[in-house]
Amino acid sequence: MEWQLEDYKEEMIKIRRHLHMHPELSFKEDNTKRYIADYLEQLGIKVRRDVGGNGILGVIEGDMPGPTVAFRADFDALPIQDAKKVPYRSAVDGVMHACGHDGHTAMLLITAKILTANRHNIKGNIVLIHQHAEEVLPGGAQSMIEAGALDRVDYVFGTHTATYLPTGTIAFCPGPAYANADSFTIHIQGSGGHGAAPHETHDAIIAASSLISQFQTIISRSIDPIATGVVTIGEFNAGDAFNVIAEHAYLSGTVRTYTQEVKARIKTRMNQLISAVEVGYNVKVTLDYQDGYPALINPVKETEWLKDTVENAAYAEEVKIQPPSLGGEDFSYFLQERPGTYFYTGVRNEEIDAIHPHHHPQFDLDEDGLIYGIQTFLTIVEHMDELA
Amino acid sequence: MEWQLEDYKEEMIKIRRHLHMHPELSFKEDNTKRYIADYLEQLGIKVRRDVGGNGILGVIEGDMPGPTVAFRADFDALPIQDAKKVPYRSAVDGVMHACGHDGHTAMLLITAKILTANRHNIKGNIVLIHQHAEEVLPGGAQSMIEAGALDRVDYVFGTHTATYLPTGTIAFCPGPAYANADSFTIHIQGSGGHGAAPHETHDAIIAASSLISQFQTIISRSIDPIATGVVTIGEFNAGDAFNVIAEHAYLSGTVRTYTQEVKARIKTRMNQLISAVEVGYNVKVTLDYQDGYPALINPVKETEWLKDTVENAAYAEEVKIQPPSLGGEDFSYFLQERPGTYFYTGVRNEEIDAIHPHHHPQFDLDEDGLIYGIQTFLTIVEHMDELA
Amino acid sequence: MEWQLEDYKEEMIKIRRHLHMHPELSFKEDNTKRYIADYLEQLGIKVRRDVGGNGILGVIEGDMPGPTVAFRADFDALPIQDAKKVPYRSAVDGVMHACGHDGHTAMLLITAKILTANRHNIKGNIVLIHQHAEEVLPGGAQSMIEAGALDRVDYVFGTHTATYLPTGTIAFCPGPAYANADSFTIHIQGSGGHGAAPHETHDAIIAASSLISQFQTIISRSIDPIATGVVTIGEFNAGDAFNVIAEHAYLSGTVRTYTQEVKARIKTRMNQLISAVEVGYNVKVTLDYQDGYPALINPVKETEWLKDTVENAAYAEEVKIQPPSLGGEDFSYFLQERPGTYFYTGVRNEEIDAIHPHHHPQFDLDEDGLIYGIQTFLTIVEHMDELA
Amino acid sequence: MEWQLEDYKEEMIKIRRHLHMHPELSFKEDNTKRYIADYLEQLGIKVRRDVGGNGILGVIEGDMPGPTVAFRADFDALPIQDAKKVPYRSAVDGVMHACGHDGHTAMLLITAKILTANRHNIKGNIVLIHQHAEEVLPGGAQSMIEAGALDRVDYVFGTHTATYLPTGTIAFCPGPAYANADSFTIHIQGSGGHGAAPHETHDAIIAASSLISQFQTIISRSIDPIATGVVTIGEFNAGDAFNVIAEHAYLSGTVRTYTQEVKARIKTRMNQLISAVEVGYNVKVTLDYQDGYPALINPVKETEWLKDTVENAAYAEEVKIQPPSLGGEDFSYFLQERPGTYFYTGVRNEEIDAIHPHHHPQFDLDEDGLIYGIQTFLTIVEHMDELA
Repeated sequence: MEWQLEDYKEEMIKIRRHLHMHPELSFKEDNTKRYIADYLEQLGIKVRRDVGGNGILGVIEGDMPGPTVAFRADFDALPIQDAKKVPYRSAVDGVMHACGHDGHTAMLLITAKILTANRHNIKGNIVLIHQHAEEVLPGGAQSMIEAGALDRVDYVFGTHTATYLPTGTIAFCPGPAYANADSFTIHIQGSGGHGAAPHETHDAIIAASSLISQFQTIISRSIDPIATGVVTIGEFNAGDAFNVIAEHAYLSGTVRTYTQEVKARIKTRMNQLISAVEVGYNVKVTLDYQDGYPALINPVKETEWLKDTVENAAYAEEVKIQPPSLGGEDFSYFLQERPGTYFYTGVRNEEIDAIHPHHHPQFDLDEDGLIYGIQTFLTIVEHMDELA
Repeated sequence: MEWQLEDYKEEMIKIRRHLHMHPELSFKEDNTKRYIADYLEQLGIKVRRDVGGNGILGVIEGDMPGPTVAFRADFDALPIQDAKKVPYRSAVDGVMHACGHDGHTAMLLITAKILTANRHNIKGNIVLIHQHAEEVLPGGAQSMIEAGALDRVDYVFGTHTATYLPTGTIAFCPGPAYANADSFTIHIQGSGGHGAAPHETHDAIIAASSLISQFQTIISRSIDPIATGVVTIGEFNAGDAFNVIAEHAYLSGTVRTYTQEVKARIKTRMNQLISAVEVGYNVKVTLDYQDGYPALINPVKETEWLKDTVENAAYAEEVKIQPPSLGGEDFSYFLQERPGTYFYTGVRNEEIDAIHPHHHPQFDLDEDGLIYGIQTFLTIVEHMDELA
Repeated sequence: MEWQLEDYKEEMIKIRRHLHMHPELSFKEDNTKRYIADYLEQLGIKVRRDVGGNGILGVIEGDMPGPTVAFRADFDALPIQDAKKVPYRSAVDGVMHACGHDGHTAMLLITAKILTANRHNIKGNIVLIHQHAEEVLPGGAQSMIEAGALDRVDYVFGTHTATYLPTGTIAFCPGPAYANADSFTIHIQGSGGHGAAPHETHDAIIAASSLISQFQTIISRSIDPIATGVVTIGEFNAGDAFNVIAEHAYLSGTVRTYTQEVKARIKTRMNQLISAVEVGYNVKVTLDYQDGYPALINPVKETEWLKDTVENAAYAEEVKIQPPSLGGEDFSYFLQERPGTYFYTGVRNEEIDAIHPHHHPQFDLDEDGLIYGIQTFLTIVEHMDELA
Repeated sequence: MEWQLEDYKEEMIKIRRHLHMHPELSFKEDNTKRYIADYLEQLGIKVRRDVGGNGILGVIEGDMPGPTVAFRADFDALPIQDAKKVPYRSAVDGVMHACGHDGHTAMLLITAKILTANRHNIKGNIVLIHQHAEEVLPGGAQSMIEAGALDRVDYVFGTHTATYLPTGTIAFCPGPAYANADSFTIHIQGSGGHGAAPHETHDAIIAASSLISQFQTIISRSIDPIATGVVTIGEFNAGDAFNVIAEHAYLSGTVRTYTQEVKARIKTRMNQLISAVEVGYNVKVTLDYQDGYPALINPVKETEWLKDTVENAAYAEEVKIQPPSLGGEDFSYFLQERPGTYFYTGVRNEEIDAIHPHHHPQFDLDEDGLIYGIQTFLTIVEHMDELA
């Protein structure tokens, strides 16, 4: 294959900035999905619209036989007010591409354009998965898969932009990379009363405080020390007056794990300790546990293959291993179905203030960094026959 | 002395219902104070207005020598919406005599009228203390004392109506009767962060929960088991999102004790445990401790004297000892300065639904019960020479 | 009645020192019981031996009609090594009258001697209850009562010597005076394992520590603040090695209360929290709760009567009210059956080092103080017709 | 190189059983060290005795140039009574090779014999490190290194027998393999007193229980969830009587980590919470923290090299990765100084009851499995020129 990425950079920036200025919330990406589908169709790519919701599928068939590799880019935005001053800042009040999905989409559209021009050199087929709704449960990945996004696909790859990695960096995380990111609420119903008559009440604050103290033993004592788990209580709200014993307490929190086994163990222990507090403090405790995206586990084999391949291709300024995150990412559903990996594309650049973490109101990315992501997709295509 | 209480009952009810219909909030008793002072002056009583705020003092001098005895009645109302249907229900939106102070005032005004008519038989002098603002800190008692309410007074008595005691009952509580009723707020300042990265935070909810658990040892281990103490946390508010570790927690609560020694011990232990949590959890904890009214300790001697005297007088249907309350009452300031007692006048009557606890939106009292309170004031006067 | 207590003092001291030198453990008072019974018989008193065990009953019938009053003195000693140097120190290794029961017995025997000489002036009858085994559960009181010790008795009185009260003092405690003094053991059975593999165990130390923390809420939240309760864990033993997770923890402790209601509430809460820890920590918890003596509640009427009577008799240097103790005393069984009171006889004297608390290896008492106790028994007899 | 391992097996077994029958405790390996040194000298190997204590060094110089590789085998035994019935069971009461060090030594002696016969084919030099005292702090490794054991050494390898791996298995653990295995004791000094007077004491059991509860937050909140840490309290001893409040509590425990950073964080948090408990409960807390062996971190490069090399050599029945242990091992000191790896040699065999875990009184190993360990040492030598 042959390409001059510099020739495409201007267009890539135009696409990215267009998307950045016109962000749309998850499950409401009406203009974005049309923009993407139209772009692909103009390239002559066969497009399937509204796949499992607002998802878009495109297929590029190589002229030579080989495996089918899917690339996924997500395209929804966040309910955050853009605080940047740049001309391409969000034109939509309270909505913003603060997670780089505009960049993901721009990378994949340009990749598609280049690949379309290089069909004769491609050994196999490319499936373009433009996924809606990554930010909000239940996400778009699962429904796109159910709608056939991975049919005939052999391998699946994707990337996330990273402002903690300088432009020029491609990073990998073999094994667990994102967590089972679950949430829960707990309602504790006791019975209130006068602050000076505790014996006539079942104090919800006492019960809730004890529950929280006891929850600490879940991580400290009940999971394998070499495994990973987090149980966080993020909210605690109870009581209306200093001199009235609270009848009700509300807690909310999150559980993070990498394996089903650890997740199940934590849930079991939560339920046991909740039952204990009910018995011990004469209160009724209701747990509402909400599964988040499953953990994203990058297959070691394909991850190491891609890392070696990128290193050999020698276009990146740094290729590295990075530690796992305890965040969530619904690319995990694709990897539950097919081998592949989810890699990281550095877009940090202090000079243009592209330094803020994801979901920050001043989030921006260095568009130069996206070039390395495109390069990586193209490199995969060049070497995809090795995967078979 | 001679009197026919039945002759005064109609007027007493008229006064009480007038006040009930026109309640005024603490420190804002403009019409009430004028009503009382005018009434007393019409009786020919020498009145001092605006004593320590809205307080009223009246003096009735007996024709015979003897001690000076003060009677106190409070006259402020509460910010509660009257939910009763009776014709004399509150005419003021959101304000209500839900604590019986209208009855206290009616009793004392009628007592004054009868005493005025019996000056020739009185051995000593009577001071009428009509006190404003009992319901709201800092209360009216302290400022009335500072303004001279107890000057030349030898003994002080007062009564509270009680819907937990049937009409006809007069009750006493020698020793501790009301508590030091203090309040506090606690701010715990940690540092927040992502719910999956507890190690980068100082979790305010963890620190606050631990503090509450540890506070339990104050009562269970640090005060004399035969003493009384309560430490209640009434409010706990922390955190804004399930997946964000809270940087701040707010607690409020109340401390109840009967002695300065126990109160001081509890405050010392609270401060020690707060310091402990600061050291142990890398948080900053701020305690704002607000003294309430001091404990009301009825002198055993005068209390037993009055109980015996009432029993001998044989007008009450029941005379009894009742257990102390952990509420607060600023009559305590009068008893810190002079001997006397604070007794309870039963006003419960199921037939007219006078059964609700104080501060209840349907609070009402049986006006027949007030007769026994007046009788008790008059009985004190008849026997006040025994006190000397 | 007429007597010169000085005439009896030498004999009283002889008796007391004889008993002090020959202490016998609870339920093994073979020589002591014979000594007492023989002494009474030599006075011509009708004696019943081996009443409910080692108890002795004697009856002195007055020549005039009147009520029957019982006086009780206990006579067992303690398993403590006497550390005093005085000539009359214990001659028995490891056994000692360290609780003043020798003094109690000497007082009652001399009282009996004086009363025997004053039969003609006694209006009623006197029952002498020399009780064995006060120090060790189940005590001698209950079995003596079952064997008839209180048959025909109308009132019962007793006294305890007190090294915290100076000689010359007689003290009273109306109402609760000694506690329900219960004990318990708790066994927590988890499953142990390697110290680095907590997830494979159910850590008994974690469960026990949580239980203790949670137990603090029993006193702080579950009993009426104006009531009295103590839950103390005195022993905690668990684990054999720093790097092995303990499979078992042993706790022991004591519960102190004055009422059955509070005692029942504490037991309920203990059982609830124990069930909670079982559920929450996957351990088996066994509570063995052992009732001690019931609370000793001095009837207010007879206590105040005796206090007034002693004050009027004017032989004591000080007559006072003392606060209740949270210790146990099986005189409570007598007061469950009959009115009366249990008073305190001061025997403190710094000059002869009679300052040590009860159960101390250097415990001694000022024999001069016992005179005031005898005087009190005799005063009761002089006024017993008032009781009727 | 050429060898027939079958020719050496009988001698290997003889050596191993001789050592098994004559175990010597750590730092007291007088006969064992002589046995080893004599054996090596008889092979014509230059031996250095008493290296850093009872350690033995031997050097085998290959005829061809190349790197110097050290092999380490430890040779001390444990204070455990051998409970086996086999003829070669320990002849020393209460001392036993229950950790396979007899096997380690036999493997290395036979390896030495074979290498000596193959000098002409060896490209480089072999250092034999027979280490004393692995079982007891401070271990022999550190002092042997200080005495020059690694001088001129380029790489270091060692193996541990494993009864959880079947004979024929060679296992590897890249990265953290053993933990920083530290121990601690905690003394909590409060002030005791009567079980019914908690307010006069500073209850050591309450303070200790609170400390343990609070320690749970170290692992649950203060270390990175993707890192590993354990804080276990193994012993809790406090109090002598159910009705006496304990003045002192003794805790012991262990801390396990893989990095200095996590270890330091845990110690900081322990110290903070200890200070907190001192401030909060008026007790004096003394922590004695004892560093154990540092974590053993197998360099990924050499570990993967050896794994690949062993797989290619194809003698093992299974080659695998195993999860890390949280135990301690002083081979870590060698790997702090030189690259290499510590691998695992399967010696499990159900047929001969070689199934018990290390430190078990019935521990035995399948001598057939040792052959695979020797093979691995020899394989390293065959390929050691690749390391350079």
